[in-house]
Amino acid sequence: MTSPTVQPWPHLSSRHGEDLRLFRTRWDTVRNPRTSEEMERIVCETPDWVNVVAFTPERELVMIHQYRFGTRRIEIEIPGGLIDPGETPETSAVRELEEETGFAAKRWTRLGSVAPNPAYQTNHCWHFLAEGAVPSGTQDLDPGEDITVEVMPQDRVVAAIRSGEISHALCITALAHVLDLRTG
Amino acid sequence: MTSPTVQPWPHLSSRHGEDLRLFRTRWDTVRNPRTSEEMERIVCETPDWVNVVAFTPERELVMIHQYRFGTRRIEIEIPGGLIDPGETPETSAVRELEEETGFAAKRWTRLGSVAPNPAYQTNHCWHFLAEGAVPSGTQDLDPGEDITVEVMPQDRVVAAIRSGEISHALCITALAHVLDLRTG
Repeated sequence: MTSPTVQPWPHLSSRHGEDLRLFRTRWDTVRNPRTSEEMERIVCETPDWVNVVAFTPERELVMIHQYRFGTRRIEIEIPGGLIDPGETPETSAVRELEEETGFAAKRWTRLGSVAPNPAYQTNHCWHFLAEGAVPSGTQDLDPGEDITVEVMPQDRVVAAIRSGEISHALCITALAHVLDLRTG
Repeated sequence: MTSPTVQPWPHLSSRHGEDLRLFRTRWDTVRNPRTSEEMERIVCETPDWVNVVAFTPERELVMIHQYRFGTRRIEIEIPGGLIDPGETPETSAVRELEEETGFAAKRWTRLGSVAPNPAYQTNHCWHFLAEGAVPSGTQDLDPGEDITVEVMPQDRVVAAIRSGEISHALCITALAHVLDLRTG
């Protein structure tokens, strides 16, 4: 029971479903190696995403407020978005910080990536650290965006994660690279 | 620019799309309060999820290996799943730990919740701490599951998160309650 002997599931066929703008659906037929049973599983083909932990020179965090259609709530998040076709994760991170906040940063470091949901999403979300972030221009928002910026002290961000005021999982996995989020 | 003056977007209408088993699609028509423009946005109506940070009496972590259809990779995760209709998050957490691992735990604590993706998912994922987890029976796997269990020392789990071997965002947000995941 303690040995990781699980096997990949043979992939038998695929058919595409609806294009839902943020992702395209696909039905994969697979075989369970444990039972030999064939079954169809939903997969969402999703482009990679990126987000940015941006520190000002005073080591405060550049956060955004944005109304979100899934939770129907104004969420406090870090800047980020979809990686455009042809972009590298780095290029996308620099662009999203500037477009969503009007800030530019001196030093950029790739922090790593996570799989938002390996059960049915194909994509990864790349996390970046931006240091020395200062206002450099103006926001350049998409028609589908309405965003305000707030620079927050680190302890305020930790408190907001602990209280649930900050709840976006992918912002928390990025911020966990720089903040101690333990509650126990 | 530093004042959080963003407004909720008026919700004008909704129409349902395809039922994709793990979630049901819905198109909401909303109005951007910044531009007054009307637009349709995709929403995935998703049931709440639960996952469990389970410590053995020796303070090791109960992890699972599972082939995932989104990333087509065997992932290392913590136990968890969908909350069934009528279940509380607590009941679901106890059930998922037992079904997926065959372990039962003495002490249960609610750690909090995250929004897996507030941009287009309606749901939350509830995180639980289970202490004193010991083998108590046998796994009871769904036809769509093939899972093996591995008890791992905490430092091995931290190293696996840092290396990307553990990549499931919702496992990382749960484990951040008990592990210091800072890399900077």
